Amino acid sequence: MFKIRSLVTALALAGSTSVVMAQALPTKAPAPADNPTTAAKVALGQMLYHDPRLSSSGTVSCASCHNTMLGGEDNRAGSVGVGGQVGGRSAPTVWNAAFNKVQFWDGRAASLEEQAAGPVTNPIEMGMKSWDDVVVRLKALEGYQKAFAKAFGKNSISKDTATKAIAAYERTLITPNSDYDKYVKGSKSAMTEQQVRGMKKAVELGCVGCHSGPAFNGPGTFQKFPVISNGYFEAQYDFKKDKGLAEVTGKKADEHMWKVPTLRNIALTAPYFHNGRVKSLDEAVKLMAKLQLGKDLSKAEIADIVAFLGALTGEFPKQTMPVLPVSSGTTFN
Amino acid sequence: MFKIRSLVTALALAGSTSVVMAQALPTKAPAPADNPTTAAKVALGQMLYHDPRLSSSGTVSCASCHNTMLGGEDNRAGSVGVGGQVGGRSAPTVWNAAFNKVQFWDGRAASLEEQAAGPVTNPIEMGMKSWDDVVVRLKALEGYQKAFAKAFGKNSISKDTATKAIAAYERTLITPNSDYDKYVKGSKSAMTEQQVRGMKKAVELGCVGCHSGPAFNGPGTFQKFPVISNGYFEAQYDFKKDKGLAEVTGKKADEHMWKVPTLRNIALTAPYFHNGRVKSLDEAVKLMAKLQLGKDLSKAEIADIVAFLGALTGEFPKQTMPVLPVSSGTTFN
Repeated sequence: MFKIRSLVTALALAGSTSVVMAQALPTKAPAPADNPTTAAKVALGQMLYHDPRLSSSGTVSCASCHNTMLGGEDNRAGSVGVGGQVGGRSAPTVWNAAFNKVQFWDGRAASLEEQAAGPVTNPIEMGMKSWDDVVVRLKALEGYQKAFAKAFGKNSISKDTATKAIAAYERTLITPNSDYDKYVKGSKSAMTEQQVRGMKKAVELGCVGCHSGPAFNGPGTFQKFPVISNGYFEAQYDFKKDKGLAEVTGKKADEHMWKVPTLRNIALTAPYFHNGRVKSLDEAVKLMAKLQLGKDLSKAEIADIVAFLGALTGEFPKQTMPVLPVSSGTTFN
Repeated sequence: MFKIRSLVTALALAGSTSVVMAQALPTKAPAPADNPTTAAKVALGQMLYHDPRLSSSGTVSCASCHNTMLGGEDNRAGSVGVGGQVGGRSAPTVWNAAFNKVQFWDGRAASLEEQAAGPVTNPIEMGMKSWDDVVVRLKALEGYQKAFAKAFGKNSISKDTATKAIAAYERTLITPNSDYDKYVKGSKSAMTEQQVRGMKKAVELGCVGCHSGPAFNGPGTFQKFPVISNGYFEAQYDFKKDKGLAEVTGKKADEHMWKVPTLRNIALTAPYFHNGRVKSLDEAVKLMAKLQLGKDLSKAEIADIVAFLGALTGEFPKQTMPVLPVSSGTTFN
């Protein structure tokens, strides 16, 4: 960490006006060897992603909490699953999730495919008893039989293919052409003076030690949060109640370790942090400087950085609304 | 009622092979004089219709219960509103709602515009305290300021314009070209023999006394349900617990009076009746014959009528997915 941060800071201080290691967001995401992206998979995945019948109550789809008509999430501290149950972590955005190295706040899924399987059978999210039950539902719908056949071959409906299709769709959810991307590609007027100032400040402070690269979520994968204990803020925001990766592994070393989240579109994804306890981006920036870097920022510095983060809002691709396979007699309680 | 039913039955028995007073579904719905349909209104209405920020929790949009990716509703007996609350009536389909003479199961709204205002401030549906609060939220979003300006002129955000836009959008939600429509237009092979048999049986029984016209929801507007008291079925389905129109007017004469619902796409909108207690279309057809017409149908007759009703499933129009106006700092609890 320190090595990287020092390098970046050093480069930044060398006086270049362009951001260090600046990279525009790619318009395509790489796919794993066993799940190459195809149009048929993407179309099927888009249907599955928006289908509330993948939940026990018929009311919750992937899109309910990771809204593809908005900033890719639900602007809530805890998302609402079946039966009105409220989850303990704030839904991460699906936009550009394809560029995450691991998935979920605690990084417990190594791929989009693995992630997609989780919420469907989580009792407080989509509440299905098993993926076998999901497969039974899908097989009963002629439209899905056809869509799976097109994407994976005949009689191919399974947990494996369904999650592959959802992942293939999610790899298309990319928001390029932010003001930052235009700036990086050479349009110096694409960002305001304040945004450029904020960008330089973020580099100088060392934010880019964890948040660099095209999706501002690397070079590392995990990072501790909070790094610096602070009783005042802990009392206010309860960050340490959730032990992050350690909740999965049970290892002391993994306590409060979290996936470094992307900063893309962060202006749209309030509230902030894993527990969504912080409502404004100003407060989030202040806390990150204090708890990760031990720095107190002035109001002007915070405003500059927040302005820069606004330049990371990209363009949402136009999508056709899926027409979901219908069937006679479907009912939910 | 009886006059009309007799007329229809008489005509049917005259031996024509085409359905009596057969009319294909229009592809456009008439708009009221004070709300002519425009592309700008439809685009705005589509956004509002799909925006969960019109609910107190940020989780429930019009589309949550009246799903435009499916049969226009949620396949539930009671829909799920904010906080996981479950409503007492089954959500009617939004498809072809433009052809309803009145709206809601009890017909308490005279227009789509009036209907659109209701669920937003219903405490168990979208839960907003007032439309003033909705207007405050919309005004805070630059994207909505622009979309309203385009549809209604500058500084036009209000309950009146929002509900007008939603209604204008809903007037585009029409599903033409069902097998029945093709049959009516002259393609005699568009319906199977069984479907034709079911259609004739429906005419002969008198179903068309209430369910005729292009949307199969007229010529009348309201009808009593159940017409015939039946203790056995009442014990099973509890139909009379809800007094229908009388719940609104308090009048004895309005007890158990309901809007005659459309039969279009009815194969897709299980469960059935105002309380959604009947899970299959077979059972619904059996009950309608018994409780409205005093007739016992054979299994074969029920199967024929259900087959005919399947011919009323139309084509869903392709839609572009709305990109909802985003704003920094939106949060919900």
